[in-house]
Amino acid sequence: MAQVLSASCVVVGNEILSGKTRDSNAHHLARFLRTRGVDLQRIQVIPDVVELIGSVVAEESARSSVVFTSGGVGPTHDDVTYKGVARAFDLPVRRHHALAARMEDFYGPRLTAVRLRMADLPHPCELVHTDGMWVPVVLVRNVYVLPGIPSLFQSMLESLAPRLQGTPIRLQSIYTQQGESELAEHLEATLAAHAGVEIGSYPRMNDPDHRVRVTLESRDADLVTRATDWLLARLDPAKLVRVERD
Amino acid sequence: MAQVLSASCVVVGNEILSGKTRDSNAHHLARFLRTRGVDLQRIQVIPDVVELIGSVVAEESARSSVVFTSGGVGPTHDDVTYKGVARAFDLPVRRHHALAARMEDFYGPRLTAVRLRMADLPHPCELVHTDGMWVPVVLVRNVYVLPGIPSLFQSMLESLAPRLQGTPIRLQSIYTQQGESELAEHLEATLAAHAGVEIGSYPRMNDPDHRVRVTLESRDADLVTRATDWLLARLDPAKLVRVERD
Repeated sequence: MAQVLSASCVVVGNEILSGKTRDSNAHHLARFLRTRGVDLQRIQVIPDVVELIGSVVAEESARSSVVFTSGGVGPTHDDVTYKGVARAFDLPVRRHHALAARMEDFYGPRLTAVRLRMADLPHPCELVHTDGMWVPVVLVRNVYVLPGIPSLFQSMLESLAPRLQGTPIRLQSIYTQQGESELAEHLEATLAAHAGVEIGSYPRMNDPDHRVRVTLESRDADLVTRATDWLLARLDPAKLVRVERD
Repeated sequence: MAQVLSASCVVVGNEILSGKTRDSNAHHLARFLRTRGVDLQRIQVIPDVVELIGSVVAEESARSSVVFTSGGVGPTHDDVTYKGVARAFDLPVRRHHALAARMEDFYGPRLTAVRLRMADLPHPCELVHTDGMWVPVVLVRNVYVLPGIPSLFQSMLESLAPRLQGTPIRLQSIYTQQGESELAEHLEATLAAHAGVEIGSYPRMNDPDHRVRVTLESRDADLVTRATDWLLARLDPAKLVRVERD
């Protein structure tokens, strides 16, 4: 049976909205979820403001099976994601003693009061640990809270893989030198004849390889193959560049 | 007088949510707006679905002075942004005859019925033209509708520059080898003593150059300079890497 899990991504970061930093975590998450068959429904990038994080996380938690947040979990004043997630569900923020103990093992005498703030978490929550790191993924209801530093974000996402398994989507792509306006009616006919397949059309400017990439997708592998074959029969073979089937 | 314009970005694209493509337009827009003194408040990435585009654009139009959409304006079935923006404001979609005439000049006999769909726009709207292109930026109330192809998006954004002029934000950065937990209390003290300045703290993993970049920002240039000097006096000079002042 096809299990369809949906997800939302909330990126917390003034530095992304101001253009100082280009986010890479949302794209990494999109690719990760794709391979696990989880549908990413929305990405939101919002400022480091507790009330805003609270309202957006609450909204996305209701919309999707799971939510991933990125950023705002360090020890400085602009790290307010734990508070925001607590606000989303009207939960208190409390010192998590097991995490504080883990930090003590890691830092020893270098464990300052400021660092310990990172053990003040929404209560209740579950911690998911990654080998070799003291920083956990904090799970509050259906919300996974991850740090914004890309190398940490990526390692910690891998630790979550066993918990996230939907039915993968099959993708086939047709690359062609035909333009979008020549293709449009054939794409519509293909859609009409193959209920349940999704078709995307991505034009390129000045790319010598191809003018348009057409993607056909579904969780039903046979359906995608039938739709791709059906569409190929209607395209100009002289302008076909290649077909990719996963 | 400081004029504060705010903005939202709505990226329409299944291909970004599925990880097939990495969006670059939101980051480009963030940098562009930053140089013009316009505050980007939110970025949302949403699927190619008319009703969703309608509700998100309506929400962002109410939140911000201006909204920019990216993607979904070509001739194929998945290009539904004009319809979505019309839906946001309960407007009809109508053939725009001046644009159709412009397309006729450009395409001549190659102007097909499918291509002409790109002249079906929310009514009323204003067109902003870019030299050398027939595709306009379509302005509906406070919403600028732009194509997703990055080279087009970027050129067309330049055409909008004269319309977007807020008071620029001044940024100064301190790069240091001190860690965030050592810095936290000094950042808080600096904030408390300099109302109106924004301070960000961005740690790096394994970067030989610096451990943390601290940013100080405000539309008041003197205030930023005072805050930066005040903070510098409290940091460890032996661990200071450099200071950048714009």
